[in-house]
Amino acid sequence: MNADAKKTVLRMIPYGIYVLTADDGKGNVAAATVNWVTQSAFGPPLVVVGVKADSGAYKIVQSTRKFVLNMLGKDQKGLAFTFFKPASVSEGKISGQPYHLAANGAPILTEAPGAIECSVTAIVEQGDHHVVVAEVTEAHLMKPPAGRPDNAILEMKDLGDTVFYGG
Amino acid sequence: MNADAKKTVLRMIPYGIYVLTADDGKGNVAAATVNWVTQSAFGPPLVVVGVKADSGAYKIVQSTRKFVLNMLGKDQKGLAFTFFKPASVSEGKISGQPYHLAANGAPILTEAPGAIECSVTAIVEQGDHHVVVAEVTEAHLMKPPAGRPDNAILEMKDLGDTVFYGG
Repeated sequence: MNADAKKTVLRMIPYGIYVLTADDGKGNVAAATVNWVTQSAFGPPLVVVGVKADSGAYKIVQSTRKFVLNMLGKDQKGLAFTFFKPASVSEGKISGQPYHLAANGAPILTEAPGAIECSVTAIVEQGDHHVVVAEVTEAHLMKPPAGRPDNAILEMKDLGDTVFYGG
Repeated sequence: MNADAKKTVLRMIPYGIYVLTADDGKGNVAAATVNWVTQSAFGPPLVVVGVKADSGAYKIVQSTRKFVLNMLGKDQKGLAFTFFKPASVSEGKISGQPYHLAANGAPILTEAPGAIECSVTAIVEQGDHHVVVAEVTEAHLMKPPAGRPDNAILEMKDLGDTVFYGG
């Protein structure tokens, strides 16, 4: 395989930036920046997320089968970097960010413009990140976008000219 | 579920535009515009595509387990609409577009800026589109991008202010 071509062509895929949150109800709360996300069906509404197989977030998602995907807004670049680091809960905040629990038990970041509650329907255990397929069971729109919704989300390219995080 | 919130929040996910091609070697060739694509692992390099379960492209991918994902360039909006329609091969072209066969037997659109050859590793048969997981076995970079690769690809938002195709 042409490794340089592989790297460049895979980097053509555009990504939004999300914070995946999960809570096992036993004191373990995860909030991790992810970008490998796509919808995969309309009926039922399914999404797919590539989740690092050795991460704390993955462990909680595996056991609870529930998570929330918080969309970050164009102006929330700082939050993307906050949640690249392991999250910690104190004084009712996750890594300093206010949140409340969704109906499915996972945290919703109050300041995110939108969030979807997800219920895992399948996991493909292949690769260093596993393929988590989940049904969208509820959606929350905290800040209705003025124009196209896909113009309101923080994107990988907004993080910096040389940032190509994956996972 | 709040249907309006679901629609808007899911539309926050940004998408590139791709042409998925496949050839069963028996005269059936598919070339279909898709956008539900994400990488899902670095090692091995895996991608996930949501493919319409009742489409001709899906039927060929199911049987051959091989396909090519052709990235479209910013200036190839016309091709996105060309491949929304069923493809036809004549005079050595697919729907008028020159192509050649990849090592895995699927067509590569010669004028695409980049393409990846994919070998299916799993299919999750859930929803109106199924989740096709595939390993990238080869990559082709026909037009090296001047800047960030994710600035060189045609995006959903480039197709028109009210275009929100899915699948």
